[in-house]
Amino acid sequence: MPDFAEPLARLIQEFKRLPGIGQKSAQRLAFHVLRTDRENAQRLATALLDVKDNLGLCSVCNNISDGDLCPFCRDPTRDHSVICVIEEPHAVLPIETTRQFSGLYHVLHGSISPLRGIGPDKLRIKELLARMEGTDVQEIILATNPTVEGEATAVYLSRLLKPLGVRVTRIAMGIPVGSDLEFADEVTMSKSLENRREM
Amino acid sequence: MPDFAEPLARLIQEFKRLPGIGQKSAQRLAFHVLRTDRENAQRLATALLDVKDNLGLCSVCNNISDGDLCPFCRDPTRDHSVICVIEEPHAVLPIETTRQFSGLYHVLHGSISPLRGIGPDKLRIKELLARMEGTDVQEIILATNPTVEGEATAVYLSRLLKPLGVRVTRIAMGIPVGSDLEFADEVTMSKSLENRREM
Repeated sequence: MPDFAEPLARLIQEFKRLPGIGQKSAQRLAFHVLRTDRENAQRLATALLDVKDNLGLCSVCNNISDGDLCPFCRDPTRDHSVICVIEEPHAVLPIETTRQFSGLYHVLHGSISPLRGIGPDKLRIKELLARMEGTDVQEIILATNPTVEGEATAVYLSRLLKPLGVRVTRIAMGIPVGSDLEFADEVTMSKSLENRREM
Repeated sequence: MPDFAEPLARLIQEFKRLPGIGQKSAQRLAFHVLRTDRENAQRLATALLDVKDNLGLCSVCNNISDGDLCPFCRDPTRDHSVICVIEEPHAVLPIETTRQFSGLYHVLHGSISPLRGIGPDKLRIKELLARMEGTDVQEIILATNPTVEGEATAVYLSRLLKPLGVRVTRIAMGIPVGSDLEFADEVTMSKSLENRREM
């Protein structure tokens, strides 16, 4: 005997496919949908399909965009001489939140990972070189993740870009602000020492 | 400048309306939808609306049902002489999981709460009395929640049902199995002592 009526069981099943949603959370969400107005369910359903139907990639930076150019690339007030290279579109938010960066982005859509068969040709690196041609890009900030893959990608890119005469920088790795040295892992601590600055 | 393209921002907004989903989780879910096949998004969207469009309440027990009778009420192998009274439909699952109960359910859709203006007339109590007429119900198990409201509802129902000559029982409250007395709150510990059994 099924515990739930079929449509409810199916909704629970679909919620469970989402990352970080287990059986209990899926049930809670499904029962919430059951209790809520049809209008709310309709809005979520529409939003789900709109994301699939109305979003593409920016033709310049490969960020997610609802038009040919993303809001960053079409904004003349942004500094078009600095490009911040990131692995995935969701890296934009933490960087924008700092309000410290006013340049453009370039989304690689991945990182070099020989183990998973991802070579430089699978990333949007050609597109980065192409967009630099004929423009006055002064600096490329490599903001790939501080992981083995992200680091490898940064090293690869810096070797590729430096000969073009552009300044290539890498975001700093170290102890997170507000943290305690007690909880720092060996690699982070060593990076933190290595990247020490004069005071 | 918005951090996300409009359809993505809207999906994040809609995910955030769900219980237990904050900004970060909503972003993770929305980016997952963005990466996944359109088919997956379509299935979730359809499941959301199906739940609103194709589910109603069982005409006998008020459980969620995709037909006039829920799977429990239309199953002749269930014990129709025992009715377990619960507050909400989601209470069915923990009870069914025990595989110890083979009777029927009755869903009240709430509990008596004078503070929130919910009196006995707002619950499906009339329907419980109506379904007992002309049948041979032997026992009513009151499985409302062990809260002030659930307890008040149980007391109210037992006063109503006992004169009808039916056996009325209440699920046991006490220390959860696998727990430690150290973590038991005062009220639970006192219930646990009160409900002690001969060994």
